[in-house]
Amino acid sequence: MSKEQNIVYIGRKPTMNYVLAVITSFNSTDTKEATLKARGRSITTTVDVAEIVRRKFMKELKAGKITIGTEEIEQEEGGTRNVSTIEITLTRG
Amino acid sequence: MSKEQNIVYIGRKPTMNYVLAVITSFNSTDTKEATLKARGRSITTTVDVAEIVRRKFMKELKAGKITIGTEEIEQEEGGTRNVSTIEITLTRG
Repeated sequence: MSKEQNIVYIGRKPTMNYVLAVITSFNSTDTKEATLKARGRSITTTVDVAEIVRRKFMKELKAGKITIGTEEIEQEEGGTRNVSTIEITLTRG
Repeated sequence: MSKEQNIVYIGRKPTMNYVLAVITSFNSTDTKEATLKARGRSITTTVDVAEIVRRKFMKELKAGKITIGTEEIEQEEGGTRNVSTIEITLTRG
């Protein structure tokens, strides 16, 4: 992990796994921010992770920029479908 | 619906129901913005609704402010549990 870019991809593991990953990424580097990225059903988990880290563990963090978007996914059976994405940046105050 | 506040609460109905509700709220009033609100599992649907409205139907809209938060829910069996919330404001360009 470089100093500039701490990215945590959120998937289908238990929420607390990602909470720990975010806290670790802040503590193992002197970075000022970490970005959580997810798509589809994991978007809800991503908001949960951001809120739990901020409210229970690192109260000095602020939810910085939140952006949403759409990605086209190639389907095995041909064609594409759209899936929503989210990025939440947490910044050390 | 007043001119100032167009709020669409997102729940468990099909995504396109909410897409239609958002478009209607823009067309039936001369409001400049609509706010989508949701909590828990509906957060993903909310991002989908915002993206579909913006990309397919009303390309002049911008995703304005996005905020996340936590609400305490009273449980029937006593005690509370936390649930994440999201608010996405769509603004007419």
